[in-house]
Amino acid sequence: MQYEAISLLGKFAKFSDHYRPRVIAEMNDYQFKVVRVQGDFVWHSHEETDETFLVLDGELTIDFRDGAVVLGRGDLFVVPKGKEHKPHAVAECKLLLIEPRGTVNTGKAGGALTAPDDVWI
Amino acid sequence: MQYEAISLLGKFAKFSDHYRPRVIAEMNDYQFKVVRVQGDFVWHSHEETDETFLVLDGELTIDFRDGAVVLGRGDLFVVPKGKEHKPHAVAECKLLLIEPRGTVNTGKAGGALTAPDDVWI
Repeated sequence: MQYEAISLLGKFAKFSDHYRPRVIAEMNDYQFKVVRVQGDFVWHSHEETDETFLVLDGELTIDFRDGAVVLGRGDLFVVPKGKEHKPHAVAECKLLLIEPRGTVNTGKAGGALTAPDDVWI
Repeated sequence: MQYEAISLLGKFAKFSDHYRPRVIAEMNDYQFKVVRVQGDFVWHSHEETDETFLVLDGELTIDFRDGAVVLGRGDLFVVPKGKEHKPHAVAECKLLLIEPRGTVNTGKAGGALTAPDDVWI
């Protein structure tokens, strides 16, 4: 049989809202999520896990309490567990997130930007 | 302080051999590895874990005993644990692999293409 690869760009063509991650695949108990971001996210942390950001298009800045990192297209960064961070992007940025199943986008911070978990596309 | 993002292309500029994965980052007990592939790999499986392939440039085919999948640039595929597979590429292909720390590239198949584990770049 012919197995089907998952096209990241193809997944992005299916939605347009910001800060609403969609799951596209699972590896053991981890998930791959695509998300469009623009504007400011909220300060939050994930107490139980590291979180990986891979920028597919655009530019993302992640602020920390002690600094920041800027990611362009093709750049990867792993935010250590427990480290407070606030992502933001001036123009729209396309991201691949990799993190354990059940990771909520705002951690325990809550608020209006908290997205439904485990939404597949 | 200014944190540094990991440039995938920048990592690829540092090596040229094939089927020799290099670790570029860790997330919990998982590793991100960059690898150049060209030609045939060996049939093998990973009995303990799924394995994720993300094609960054070129085209990769992964044969299974019951079929195959073809990945182009920006395509992702998760090979389920225990599933025998044989990657191959006619022209050079650049990959990002994501799998648990300690995953050997040839599984238990061994042979000349078995790469040293946990080599960072």
